[in-house]
Amino acid sequence: MRKIFRELVTVEEAIDIFLKHYDPRPQRIEHIDLFNALGRVLAEPITANIDVPPFDRSSVDGYAVVAEDTYRASETSPVRLEIIGRIRTGHISSIKITKGLATEVDTGAVIPIGANAVVPVEYTEEKEGYVLIYKRVAPGDNIQYAGSDIIKGETLLRTGYQLTPRDIGVLAALGYREVPVYGKPKVAIFSIGDELVSPGDKISPGKIYDVNSYTLYSSVKEIGGEPVYLGIAKDNPKDIENKIREGLKIADIVISSGSSSVGYSDMVYKIVNKLGEPGVLVHGIKSKPGKPVLISVINNKPYFGLPGFPTSALTAFMVFVAPIIMEMAGLNPREKVSKLQIILKERIRGEKGRRLFKTVSLKRKDSTIIGVPLPVLSGAITTLAYAEAFFEVHEKIEFIPKGEKVSGTLCEQKLKTPDLVVAAPPSVILDKKLNELASARRNFRIKYLKMNPISAVEKLIKREVDLAGINIIDENTGIYNKHIYDKYSNIVKVWAFERDIVIVVREGNPHQIKSIEDAINKKLVIANREKGGNERAYFNHITKRIAERKGMSLTELAKHIPGYYTEYRTISAAILAVIYGKADYCIAPVDIARNYSVNWISLGREIYDIVALKEEIPNINF
Amino acid sequence: MRKIFRELVTVEEAIDIFLKHYDPRPQRIEHIDLFNALGRVLAEPITANIDVPPFDRSSVDGYAVVAEDTYRASETSPVRLEIIGRIRTGHISSIKITKGLATEVDTGAVIPIGANAVVPVEYTEEKEGYVLIYKRVAPGDNIQYAGSDIIKGETLLRTGYQLTPRDIGVLAALGYREVPVYGKPKVAIFSIGDELVSPGDKISPGKIYDVNSYTLYSSVKEIGGEPVYLGIAKDNPKDIENKIREGLKIADIVISSGSSSVGYSDMVYKIVNKLGEPGVLVHGIKSKPGKPVLISVINNKPYFGLPGFPTSALTAFMVFVAPIIMEMAGLNPREKVSKLQIILKERIRGEKGRRLFKTVSLKRKDSTIIGVPLPVLSGAITTLAYAEAFFEVHEKIEFIPKGEKVSGTLCEQKLKTPDLVVAAPPSVILDKKLNELASARRNFRIKYLKMNPISAVEKLIKREVDLAGINIIDENTGIYNKHIYDKYSNIVKVWAFERDIVIVVREGNPHQIKSIEDAINKKLVIANREKGGNERAYFNHITKRIAERKGMSLTELAKHIPGYYTEYRTISAAILAVIYGKADYCIAPVDIARNYSVNWISLGREIYDIVALKEEIPNINF
Repeated sequence: MRKIFRELVTVEEAIDIFLKHYDPRPQRIEHIDLFNALGRVLAEPITANIDVPPFDRSSVDGYAVVAEDTYRASETSPVRLEIIGRIRTGHISSIKITKGLATEVDTGAVIPIGANAVVPVEYTEEKEGYVLIYKRVAPGDNIQYAGSDIIKGETLLRTGYQLTPRDIGVLAALGYREVPVYGKPKVAIFSIGDELVSPGDKISPGKIYDVNSYTLYSSVKEIGGEPVYLGIAKDNPKDIENKIREGLKIADIVISSGSSSVGYSDMVYKIVNKLGEPGVLVHGIKSKPGKPVLISVINNKPYFGLPGFPTSALTAFMVFVAPIIMEMAGLNPREKVSKLQIILKERIRGEKGRRLFKTVSLKRKDSTIIGVPLPVLSGAITTLAYAEAFFEVHEKIEFIPKGEKVSGTLCEQKLKTPDLVVAAPPSVILDKKLNELASARRNFRIKYLKMNPISAVEKLIKREVDLAGINIIDENTGIYNKHIYDKYSNIVKVWAFERDIVIVVREGNPHQIKSIEDAINKKLVIANREKGGNERAYFNHITKRIAERKGMSLTELAKHIPGYYTEYRTISAAILAVIYGKADYCIAPVDIARNYSVNWISLGREIYDIVALKEEIPNINF
Repeated sequence: MRKIFRELVTVEEAIDIFLKHYDPRPQRIEHIDLFNALGRVLAEPITANIDVPPFDRSSVDGYAVVAEDTYRASETSPVRLEIIGRIRTGHISSIKITKGLATEVDTGAVIPIGANAVVPVEYTEEKEGYVLIYKRVAPGDNIQYAGSDIIKGETLLRTGYQLTPRDIGVLAALGYREVPVYGKPKVAIFSIGDELVSPGDKISPGKIYDVNSYTLYSSVKEIGGEPVYLGIAKDNPKDIENKIREGLKIADIVISSGSSSVGYSDMVYKIVNKLGEPGVLVHGIKSKPGKPVLISVINNKPYFGLPGFPTSALTAFMVFVAPIIMEMAGLNPREKVSKLQIILKERIRGEKGRRLFKTVSLKRKDSTIIGVPLPVLSGAITTLAYAEAFFEVHEKIEFIPKGEKVSGTLCEQKLKTPDLVVAAPPSVILDKKLNELASARRNFRIKYLKMNPISAVEKLIKREVDLAGINIIDENTGIYNKHIYDKYSNIVKVWAFERDIVIVVREGNPHQIKSIEDAINKKLVIANREKGGNERAYFNHITKRIAERKGMSLTELAKHIPGYYTEYRTISAAILAVIYGKADYCIAPVDIARNYSVNWISLGREIYDIVALKEEIPNINF
């Protein structure tokens, strides 16, 4: 039972094995100032050492009296009492009241000895040292008795409460300046990978920025842990061992992400088992993501090795690590990991024999939450950006039908569905407009999904997005977008702009390209784009006319255009192909080309329309 | 229009007048480290300065090839390519692939020039410097093209986004080490009152601890402000002016609470108008609480004067101040001030001509939230502790019927309804048991409402609480609790304990009281308790037998018991009356008496049962 290594286990087995070797509970108690207590977890019950109020006090401005004196008072025939003084709030007084006497008292003032009621000022009239009382009061009226609020010895807050502003007010009322809370669990975090560079540092070829350290750091903070960043480990045993050692020394729990190299598994197994008992407990879980997850305990401190892809790392963290940290923080994992009902927009295939944690992009539709599944393993940053939640597909489930409701786990503490979802081809002009829309509001979240206009309008029709961008020329007529409007009668234009479409060439235009025909004649290589996008359609529109002039079909001409059949799936890939000499030219909109060190030759104007469904036009002022 | 003073305005008018003189918006931009960015609000759009990925990279472990080479590959007849090297993740390579060649690539490694696809390792076999390929790949397969994730120049995050862990991951991916966010609005806070003492300091007669500074401080923090505590001002013009001046110097907004003395209104009017323009805008709102609220702007900085009672101060803060602070923090008030549907347990009377903000204690019943209204103006700390939310009753509404649904505003960001609500007479033994129940869980919130057993069991029957405590003797038979069980057949005992019931006397027992009869014979003054509680019932039980022996009725005997008809509403008030000499003795349970410097004489054992409704027994293990 102790070592289950290299044998894949289920999600539940993994958690069970871990919990047999580690008891996640608060590690220490600290006393903190009341001003810093918000959100901290009480480590001891809070008992009143005083009565609240600590003395009988008036709950109104008025006159403290012997109630019996007022029994004959009425609106028409007042009772007259002699005023023998005034007691102000916060001040003490030796005044004693007996029958026939009254004292002026402020709200909160001490009730003098002998008085057993207060007549509110609005039922009285002061006259030459006497007060006329127009309303009878009963004993106890308008007096807050000592201990009527809180009795000495009473428990007000108990162990485990996460302190709210009101709780902190209660602590203040009892005279506590400091409060005993659980120490936050210290969580050491590092990333593994030769390719990783810290944000802010210069990036060189083959390198990418470290993402997981930052996502995990913030997630740990969000769930009540105290993250400690250890930096980036190179993908070698010495570096990894040093980081784990450092983490174990300063923290209660250690997390790494990354390193999927083939030798990693053996390497980490050896390192961890050398460092302490019981060592590796689980290495490999029947889940996706999670297969490469390593779970270990080293001398009573957990060490988790998470996958390297950002979305996988975050999901594995949420499933396997976050509940442990919360328990160590004294928080209730069931309470903090927010669950919600999500309606699936697509049929989801299960992964035979593996628990699938499927990330979804959320969209609020009236009171329901719609989830659009995202690819899990792509490693894309946009996937991370759009994955507001994930849900589980059990290893025994073949598929979940489209339209089904599933229980989702939010990737953050607070649900924030996007306020506007746009599917459109890349455009700096549209981006700027969306920035304006966001700035005019507070936390107005816009999702701008980049895709070709044909895919964009299809997503709009399926109601997965609120707006679509269309910018596609009819290859035959040369007219923009009309064929889209003809096909979809239920869409309507809500905004539009124009931009130049250009031939992108390397700096200095080494081949002196003058036009598309010129490039074709010179047998130069195009970085062509995929079907469905305007760069492809525009190129076809021009080449069709060239083919006509040459008396051939486009298909025949295409054979003489090097690169025609290689499809670059993104505009950046095409432009970079030109820059790095894989191709000589490509078609691009000028606002995108402008971001790269390239030259260009204008071809014409592109018309870019933003469209919505007629019956669901978003309430946006463009 | 400028000065509307001493003329009560409606809630909406108050807000309108304020907004005409002050535009709540972020005050400054600061650049903070990514590790500290969680929850902060973006001040500028974040645009990609790089393509992500920045180069074409492999999405799998495998072999980079020319796709065309694999077109004839199949499971039975592999294609054979020469391996000319290996490219590891994070390393660069000068390898060039042409037809017939392949390179080993790790996940994330740079795709070499000439290659246009990657064959995953699971479809290959390495043999003596060659790789056998068992599956065809198309151009682009298993390659993440440069910019396929994020295109250079693309906007990823926009102004106003409150940064989540995922957003921070996106920023890291783009290479940002620092991020421009709005500076938190600085909010200076002080309390006014001669009676106020800071928690931790010694409390003297007539004084109470300052609560509002701490509640408001934490609330400001919770909604994205940066609180600055100025301390306590005495209730005089000089002290108040100094605090306001200090606040205006160091903060963007100033808040005080307290001071309801009659002269306050004139005093503050003069101070504020002397300090700057436009000065006092509103002083007095047609709302409850809120009547004494002061709204002013002094040289473009708002100053709010809030009521002194803790619950009133918090409610007024939530209604009038919190939205302003959120706007200044760049947050969306509508988003953060959480709303929820509450079902009312009682009929609520409106306040003619005044907007009523009614605080409620919440109880979750399956998926609905039940609200039990609390007194607003009592100044009680327990009211503050139990007021999880409040709702509005418009000034034109006469009443809201029982059972109606209202829209509530939570006093905190996150809803946490109590997990167990208990109504019972004060008991240290019960308190300890509840502490155990709470400690065994995480953030298990227990509300222990102190009240007499008759009221407690009535609340249980009305389903306002989960458990009730009953400890009342039958005055005639001397048997505990049976008459309660006889009356309510649907309640059941879930736990019980016994405790001594005693006669409480001053230290040293100055009158040498031996028994109740002895005290009566000595004509000593009792601090009697209210009807419905056991101390009263027990005293009656004893005195009835004394009366019988004397051949008189209890009513006759009572005339000879000084203090019999003065009802102390709390056990503390009765004990304190004995301590301070207002009375000579009282009846109390020993666990409460023990908290005070008093002596006692045992009378007998009290039986204290905890009961639940038969059909709704809470799932609690006592």
